Amino acid sequence: MAAFVCGSSFVAGTLSIQGTEDKEARGCKFGLTRSAALKRPRALRMEVDEAYSPGQGFNRGPRSTPFLDAINSPTDMKNLSVSQLPKLAHELRWETIKAVSQTGGHLGASLGVVELTVALHYVFNTPADRIVWDVAHQAYPHKILTGRRHRMPTLRKYGGLSGFTKRDESEYDPFGAGHSSTSISAALGMATARDFSGKTNHCIAVIGDGAITGGMAYEAMNHAGSHNNRVIVILNDNGQVSLPTGTKSASGTKAAGALSEYTTRILTSRPFMDVRSVAKQLTKLMPSEMRQMAAQFDEYARGVVQQGGTLFEELGFYYVGPIDGHNLDSLTGVLQNVRDMPGNKPVLIHVRTEKGRGYAPAEAAFDKYHGVGKFNVSTGVQQKSTAATLSYTAIFAKALIEHAAIDRTIVGINAAMPGGTGLSMFGDKFPSRCFDVGIAEQHAVTFAAGLATEGYKPFCAIYSTFLQRGYDQVVHDVVLQRLPVRFILDRAGLVGNDGPTHHGTFDLAYMGCLPNIVIMAPSDELELQNMIATAVEIDDMPSVVRYPRGNGLGLDVIAQKFGTRRLEESNENMGRSLPIGKGRVIRRATSGNKPSPKGKRMSPKVALLSLGARLLNAVEAAEALEEVGVPVSVVDARFMKPLDKDLILKLADTHDVLITLEEGSIGGFGSHVLQLLTLEGKLDTGKLKVRPMVIPDVFIEQGSQTEQYEEAGLNTHHIVSTALRLVGREQEAIKYAKSSAIAVSESTIA
Amino acid sequence: MAAFVCGSSFVAGTLSIQGTEDKEARGCKFGLTRSAALKRPRALRMEVDEAYSPGQGFNRGPRSTPFLDAINSPTDMKNLSVSQLPKLAHELRWETIKAVSQTGGHLGASLGVVELTVALHYVFNTPADRIVWDVAHQAYPHKILTGRRHRMPTLRKYGGLSGFTKRDESEYDPFGAGHSSTSISAALGMATARDFSGKTNHCIAVIGDGAITGGMAYEAMNHAGSHNNRVIVILNDNGQVSLPTGTKSASGTKAAGALSEYTTRILTSRPFMDVRSVAKQLTKLMPSEMRQMAAQFDEYARGVVQQGGTLFEELGFYYVGPIDGHNLDSLTGVLQNVRDMPGNKPVLIHVRTEKGRGYAPAEAAFDKYHGVGKFNVSTGVQQKSTAATLSYTAIFAKALIEHAAIDRTIVGINAAMPGGTGLSMFGDKFPSRCFDVGIAEQHAVTFAAGLATEGYKPFCAIYSTFLQRGYDQVVHDVVLQRLPVRFILDRAGLVGNDGPTHHGTFDLAYMGCLPNIVIMAPSDELELQNMIATAVEIDDMPSVVRYPRGNGLGLDVIAQKFGTRRLEESNENMGRSLPIGKGRVIRRATSGNKPSPKGKRMSPKVALLSLGARLLNAVEAAEALEEVGVPVSVVDARFMKPLDKDLILKLADTHDVLITLEEGSIGGFGSHVLQLLTLEGKLDTGKLKVRPMVIPDVFIEQGSQTEQYEEAGLNTHHIVSTALRLVGREQEAIKYAKSSAIAVSESTIA
Repeated sequence: MAAFVCGSSFVAGTLSIQGTEDKEARGCKFGLTRSAALKRPRALRMEVDEAYSPGQGFNRGPRSTPFLDAINSPTDMKNLSVSQLPKLAHELRWETIKAVSQTGGHLGASLGVVELTVALHYVFNTPADRIVWDVAHQAYPHKILTGRRHRMPTLRKYGGLSGFTKRDESEYDPFGAGHSSTSISAALGMATARDFSGKTNHCIAVIGDGAITGGMAYEAMNHAGSHNNRVIVILNDNGQVSLPTGTKSASGTKAAGALSEYTTRILTSRPFMDVRSVAKQLTKLMPSEMRQMAAQFDEYARGVVQQGGTLFEELGFYYVGPIDGHNLDSLTGVLQNVRDMPGNKPVLIHVRTEKGRGYAPAEAAFDKYHGVGKFNVSTGVQQKSTAATLSYTAIFAKALIEHAAIDRTIVGINAAMPGGTGLSMFGDKFPSRCFDVGIAEQHAVTFAAGLATEGYKPFCAIYSTFLQRGYDQVVHDVVLQRLPVRFILDRAGLVGNDGPTHHGTFDLAYMGCLPNIVIMAPSDELELQNMIATAVEIDDMPSVVRYPRGNGLGLDVIAQKFGTRRLEESNENMGRSLPIGKGRVIRRATSGNKPSPKGKRMSPKVALLSLGARLLNAVEAAEALEEVGVPVSVVDARFMKPLDKDLILKLADTHDVLITLEEGSIGGFGSHVLQLLTLEGKLDTGKLKVRPMVIPDVFIEQGSQTEQYEEAGLNTHHIVSTALRLVGREQEAIKYAKSSAIAVSESTIA
Repeated sequence: MAAFVCGSSFVAGTLSIQGTEDKEARGCKFGLTRSAALKRPRALRMEVDEAYSPGQGFNRGPRSTPFLDAINSPTDMKNLSVSQLPKLAHELRWETIKAVSQTGGHLGASLGVVELTVALHYVFNTPADRIVWDVAHQAYPHKILTGRRHRMPTLRKYGGLSGFTKRDESEYDPFGAGHSSTSISAALGMATARDFSGKTNHCIAVIGDGAITGGMAYEAMNHAGSHNNRVIVILNDNGQVSLPTGTKSASGTKAAGALSEYTTRILTSRPFMDVRSVAKQLTKLMPSEMRQMAAQFDEYARGVVQQGGTLFEELGFYYVGPIDGHNLDSLTGVLQNVRDMPGNKPVLIHVRTEKGRGYAPAEAAFDKYHGVGKFNVSTGVQQKSTAATLSYTAIFAKALIEHAAIDRTIVGINAAMPGGTGLSMFGDKFPSRCFDVGIAEQHAVTFAAGLATEGYKPFCAIYSTFLQRGYDQVVHDVVLQRLPVRFILDRAGLVGNDGPTHHGTFDLAYMGCLPNIVIMAPSDELELQNMIATAVEIDDMPSVVRYPRGNGLGLDVIAQKFGTRRLEESNENMGRSLPIGKGRVIRRATSGNKPSPKGKRMSPKVALLSLGARLLNAVEAAEALEEVGVPVSVVDARFMKPLDKDLILKLADTHDVLITLEEGSIGGFGSHVLQLLTLEGKLDTGKLKVRPMVIPDVFIEQGSQTEQYEEAGLNTHHIVSTALRLVGREQEAIKYAKSSAIAVSESTIA
């Protein structure tokens, strides 16, 4: 139990600053910078070894981090002996655990690749050699080793380190990521460029067994396998293909595909290869001059033609493995062999790792601590979310389950996101009607289309940002054929800490331009229920429900702000279907209630026309505006397609200012409203000022959603000051903007 | 030579009507409807056999088509014996050749699957059994057998048959296509639905060796391989992976990937399987109850675990083959075996076919008559296009070649479209710098991104419609990282005969919403050259050049209509780089030159703000409008991103009406202009009427581009009548619209 105390005392400390101090304090003693290490006497090295204390209780890290303290960049690792690497790895693992315990983030994947990260930076010469981390949520140890250790406390925070690799952040990040399955393509492009330029650096893609189920990884392997620009692919196989955001459920536990079964079969049927056998295997690789002749001979000799090789060999790769990904002797030996071998044929190294490795609470957890909030290092207990309301994700899942209990044609489909989309809950209830197809959004969409042709009602639940991966299938297989696939786009709008790779800001533009589709965005959780009920009924064309990351408002807020009555118990989760293409008026401008500040003429009337979850901001803005005498109507558009033409044109006719609001980019709801208004001549007369408020034309970095919407200019005070400006109260608008910006900034810090 | 005469006389004839007459005339004699066939005496059958005359000269079809005449639906085939099927296939092949000779279309692929089509409809029970044709340009024989023979003369024409399968067109088309690699996903969806519903029909995907390189095919196989809903995949391997629109060139001839090398290796190393050996192979398949135990035993027995099976077996399929795809005995036998075998494991039947099979000119042609115009059946000679100007595609290729000769960092990338994109010409000059990555748009984009990180200038040439397949990679790998990949989007806008699956109408919306990108659209071929020169220079962010299918205007028209001077010889193909985000004024409103018809007050001034190739229509509309006294300015925006704010705001200030024009959907250029104008307050005063003219919110069917733009309301007269309405001359607008619509309609028929 002592370990707990020790661990928790660390949690209470200040990791980054102490870490930096530690390094400075102990620098002369334990520091292993290149020059220091060369001069270091044997006695001191003994001391270092003793300071290192692995295995003392599963929840306890090393007392000090002498090896890690000496690493300012991967170059500093070159002085270490292979036998010292496990010590460095041990320190690095606990550094990662402690850092994430303070910030939250993707822990499990990073713990799985600690040894691999050490081995890669030890054997290869980064940044000249390019390491492309697929998805890159496993890159925390890589960040720590590449000069970003002191910034780890800022991980995923506004202005801090990205939760993924990022080109702007470090020269050691040759390619950014966030989405899956891109690394082989990128590394192959780099390898091609290298050979054009006559350079000799290595290009390495590290890709998980989940990511390799993505179609583009296969496209890249197919290209690489017939390409004469060597790329090294490291298949980081942790047998977790279906787990990215899985939760403990029937649907979440099941591996998603044949490929996974195949690699598992390799892993279970063959012993791990040692360095000697790998070296022997690699002598078969010839320099490129002899390649063609030799390859043919080689294939005959190995019986590939007659027997079939492994899947990766059939795709043109030299397959090496499987290797124990936590054994640094094996890893460094094999990587050195691959690094030094001649030829230009692509190589795939199959490495077996364990997600969450080396941290008992993570190893024991169902999700291997894939993504965690802040937690107590010694206990592994995560800080509970204090939200009193349910997430939109859960609301969707509960609603779908109730409908599916009645309607047996309802089917749920997700792409390796059972937990994140809420379909794990659905799968628990209806395991045979819930499909996790792997990281394969393209297939998910067209698979859903196939089900729809036969009269089923597929709910295809994919994050807004990931549906970009299935866009052509949406256009070509679903929309063009007018098949009633229901797209459930979670994480629409700005998503918070995952940052710009994961924002779901473009869907309203890229889906809105398509004919034959209904697009809905709920303003609260009751509306989400209603829209699920509506989607169940829309059976003659595709429909979309897009909603934000995060929690609903709660029934009290909804009742107070939107005046929506609480639904009866019997119908609690199901909602009620809405009339298609009809918006709803939340409040009508109370013109004339109060005198305007000048006490003379009536204030111009403002209409706030909101799509989606900005409605609360719209209502709050309306309240603030009415306070200062500006009458404001607030309308929840509910539908982007079809637009509620009657309602919008009436708003245009009866107001002086019309502001549209959405959690999306240009080309979306605002653009559709503007087109309607111009085509109907509503902007010809000078009687209406219209302004679209959209997410601006920049990528907004990681941070809280509030911070991001602040940067986007879409929080309540932005609406207020925009409206004030438009009703001719410019000075007040400026004053209001200033005071509110400060207030928000303070609330953010708090 | 007699065959030539015979053939050409056919060409002069009227296929469809004669075909129908033939059937009626000969119905009682040779007809093989179910009832008739049963009664048919032996002597008559002999006569039928004699009427059938295969192999009489390579360019000559059968004199009559008794077997085909009897097929009104696949049911009618069931009475035939297997030995009669080759005769039906022979007739069907020539029917296809003759039909396409009159309409143009995708011939080569259809000829390759004649026997397969016959065998599938003979063995399976369509439409209850679902046949999903991947891409579906090979579905002409299928259309002929499924009741659409008489409509073949309307193929790909306005109001006629689609060039692909289409759900609306026939119950025998359970899934539409046009884009590649979707069939396995769709068939798997159908198979899943079948098993939900307790039905027993078969679900079959027919996919080519090109299409199977697409990532989503792999995603689908990965899913199917671990799925207990049997789907039958027929790999139609014609060794033409890289040929879809290839032309005879170094880059076009090369197969694109390792998978192709792999299947070729199978085909060359193994004899075709006969029915008996297939039957033997299939006895290993067990009913689903015993599946799990048996599978394990089976795998050990076959040595899969130790040796590795074929790639498809490793992906969980039962691999059957290879089979000779032109041998109807083999085909029907194998298909019957597969149809009747128990179990629910997916099956892949590897069929070897020959593109262009059975028509000597096609077999001899480099591209196997992949896509042809009208041609003379007996000679195989295609009608030459009479266009005096070069295609945009060729202009792009020539420009890129000249730049690449100077700038060695320029690289060309295409996805199985070397001919269609013009990169085959580039590849001829720079084979090592030209990459055809297969049907793999996702990989193409990120591969380009990888090259860009290393300082290269990738030109990623992908049709507008196919870039939808790589959208996430554009967003996540290119735009977010601000990598200078150059996207060359050919076939933007409405594309003509390929129809709605191939329209490139959404790119302005789905690309326009992204930050950090330059988007250009040339109004003519000189502008295309200039924009290629501009893209070469834009090295700090991605850029897009999107242009239409078809030919340029010619220098004379450009000089006359746009006043653009002919470039000097030395610079003929390269163009000159343009100032980023600056439009150009083509003509200024000549206000006051002529009195308006009413002879009183000055007419309101109209500005036509065009992006892309509608500029010619804008100028023609301006001429027509000036004729009737409406002063019109015409501006070529050149850039959608960044917009030329100064120019647009100035136009807004100095005109009464502003009409935007583009070959794209809502959410694109017009939407961006509207947003600019509203944010700048230009629509607040009632001094400006603005109208976006965009492709309307429907899918426009196949036809000529002129017909399609007519339906879209974007031809010259639409602009004229829109402008007339907006300047208050409603009656003239209506009159003009009526007369012009007729004129266009007549010109279309001519």
